[in-house]
Amino acid sequence: MYKEMIIEKIDQAVKILNEKNIDMWMTFVRETGNMKDPMIDMVVGAGATWQSAFIITKSGQTHAIIGSLELENMKMTGTYKNIHSYLKSIKEELIQVLDLYKPNKIAINFSRNSTLADGLPHGLYLELLDHLKETKYEEALISSEEIIAALRGRKSNKELDIMKEAIKETLKIFDDTTRFIKPGVAEKQVAQFVLDLCAQKGFEPAWEKEYCPSVFSGPNTAGAHAGPTDRIIERGHVVNMDFGIKYKGYCSDLQRTWYICHPHEDKAPMEVQKGFDVIIESITLSANELKPGKKGWEIDEIARNYIQVHGYEEYPHGLGHQVGRVVHDGGALLGPKWERYGNLPFLEIEEGNVFTIEPRLTIPEYGIATVEEEIVVTKTGCEFLSERQKKIYLIK
Amino acid sequence: MYKEMIIEKIDQAVKILNEKNIDMWMTFVRETGNMKDPMIDMVVGAGATWQSAFIITKSGQTHAIIGSLELENMKMTGTYKNIHSYLKSIKEELIQVLDLYKPNKIAINFSRNSTLADGLPHGLYLELLDHLKETKYEEALISSEEIIAALRGRKSNKELDIMKEAIKETLKIFDDTTRFIKPGVAEKQVAQFVLDLCAQKGFEPAWEKEYCPSVFSGPNTAGAHAGPTDRIIERGHVVNMDFGIKYKGYCSDLQRTWYICHPHEDKAPMEVQKGFDVIIESITLSANELKPGKKGWEIDEIARNYIQVHGYEEYPHGLGHQVGRVVHDGGALLGPKWERYGNLPFLEIEEGNVFTIEPRLTIPEYGIATVEEEIVVTKTGCEFLSERQKKIYLIK
Repeated sequence: MYKEMIIEKIDQAVKILNEKNIDMWMTFVRETGNMKDPMIDMVVGAGATWQSAFIITKSGQTHAIIGSLELENMKMTGTYKNIHSYLKSIKEELIQVLDLYKPNKIAINFSRNSTLADGLPHGLYLELLDHLKETKYEEALISSEEIIAALRGRKSNKELDIMKEAIKETLKIFDDTTRFIKPGVAEKQVAQFVLDLCAQKGFEPAWEKEYCPSVFSGPNTAGAHAGPTDRIIERGHVVNMDFGIKYKGYCSDLQRTWYICHPHEDKAPMEVQKGFDVIIESITLSANELKPGKKGWEIDEIARNYIQVHGYEEYPHGLGHQVGRVVHDGGALLGPKWERYGNLPFLEIEEGNVFTIEPRLTIPEYGIATVEEEIVVTKTGCEFLSERQKKIYLIK
Repeated sequence: MYKEMIIEKIDQAVKILNEKNIDMWMTFVRETGNMKDPMIDMVVGAGATWQSAFIITKSGQTHAIIGSLELENMKMTGTYKNIHSYLKSIKEELIQVLDLYKPNKIAINFSRNSTLADGLPHGLYLELLDHLKETKYEEALISSEEIIAALRGRKSNKELDIMKEAIKETLKIFDDTTRFIKPGVAEKQVAQFVLDLCAQKGFEPAWEKEYCPSVFSGPNTAGAHAGPTDRIIERGHVVNMDFGIKYKGYCSDLQRTWYICHPHEDKAPMEVQKGFDVIIESITLSANELKPGKKGWEIDEIARNYIQVHGYEEYPHGLGHQVGRVVHDGGALLGPKWERYGNLPFLEIEEGNVFTIEPRLTIPEYGIATVEEEIVVTKTGCEFLSERQKKIYLIK
């Protein structure tokens, strides 16, 4: 299955090379056990110890140039048609393969904007330049960011099927969590409950387990991207959790919000309900406008404005990111035009992209309201992949 | 414990900065969930989503400059004294911190020779250059490879204690494997036995589980760095296994060799015994010469020559590598002067380095003999960390 998925993505890469008119795409790596170019799992499927080049050409050919000790392993992996091995230096084999195609444009994995297209370390880049010195290929190197944004962003049906299963399994865990949360339990206990459940089911958390799940309760919480603390969940707290799993190589990423009722309450206080409803409506409004050709900042702006117009501070992050083999995946981002996001908010949304929508706001004296859903972009709009949370979960 | 170990390594880094007369060392990263600079686990202890700088100065100061959403998490991590957060762009905060020290030399993580010092992707390097444009710091950037080679290579006593435990636990698993191996069992079954045992004990394999353990049986095997196959272990086969675990963040890496006796045999055939003995003696001879100040290629040459003089082909790899948080760790390498190893065989061996010694040779018609031990370099020589295999393990 994994091999077939890689071959499917390689075929898709060939189409993208033709669409973008790029002769060749080369993923150049070494010691992937220490630090792995994020494209390796998607279009290679085997690690590499010594300098190795994984080449996909516009004409549909694939070449792996690898250290001799890894020859058999690459053959067994079975994802590349032509395999070349070397003992002492990659240079000669590499140039021989390039000479077969004489490419004018060779895309390599560096990008100022996208970390997923920035898998080539600077020192290894200098090594590559040195191998190509005094050949015409030195001038042919370009960034692969366009290829990678398209390849990671446009999900195949096989990929979507797996991602839907991942979401379903994740929402089951959220349901179990609803039964677990009660006053007197610490954030860390909720997180441990979720991690134990994950381990039982054989799922890995989608990101570092120190803050997957993140659990926040009550006012003045630590804020996103922090780990759960010893803080005790109390009546009158708004609680939320950010969590996803890795399932057959693909990630999910969702958030849900709870309110812990006082004994006399059978619904959330007005302020809490208002904040929650603003989040839900901001998701609906931005999803309504999400479609191919739009730019991410346009979608972010809809939710951001709606939240501010209703008297809350804007959220200090983007509205949503793509999801895939990694939790922050793809190129285009539903984010504001802030320098820290580079050109990602300016890229066009494409059919087959999977995005999170995850606005956030603070309800003073209660906590944070945040709901995160996942959607897939269709030909004319978008569809929710996750069954939406539309009512705040009440813990009585 | 983890926090204390990081602080210990940061203190060690300050000493190294003074020794090498480098003003400042900056680990510059983003989206460590997608691809993580290998230094993050050793001298930071927290991931980062947005562009982040982790700075250690010669004067002993530490500064973390991070995205605002990660401020609380960094405080909880507790490894950096000064924490600065930003919302939109890191540039201003970064330059303010640099202006506090006005460094003439800023080491950053790029290296042509060492992947462990090559954690800065090329695109992110271009971003950094842009932040520093028109400041004097643009000219101050140098490679951190010397710092990282020393820091990763010189193990503290705390690190050595953990590594010794890791080796002990690994050798127990080898002992269990000796009881499991028998004629009729496939390589893959041996590997699965070992992985199951690992899972039971809560250990992760030290490298990708597709070929950790690697198991090779009989003549014409797939060769190092390949996964185990469906090949059935037979009487008359030499079998070997390459395996290590990750234990409290540190790796082990060992190999052992077995011979599967025919019913009439109570020892290995002469050819097998001779091949095995040459491996053992080559380990002894090279360990005898291993001491601070020697260069890796000098040690590699001893084993390589000894093996060739006895009529075997030279092994197609280095004699040994350093081990630590990652399985191929540190700078200096016990390797031949081949281009693919860059300058690593030319670096000086230092006290506190942990190396593998792992020569290999093919015994025609029987299989591969390979034994891998781990040693630590002392003031005047080296000591074996692993209880040596000196006799071939016989399976009757």
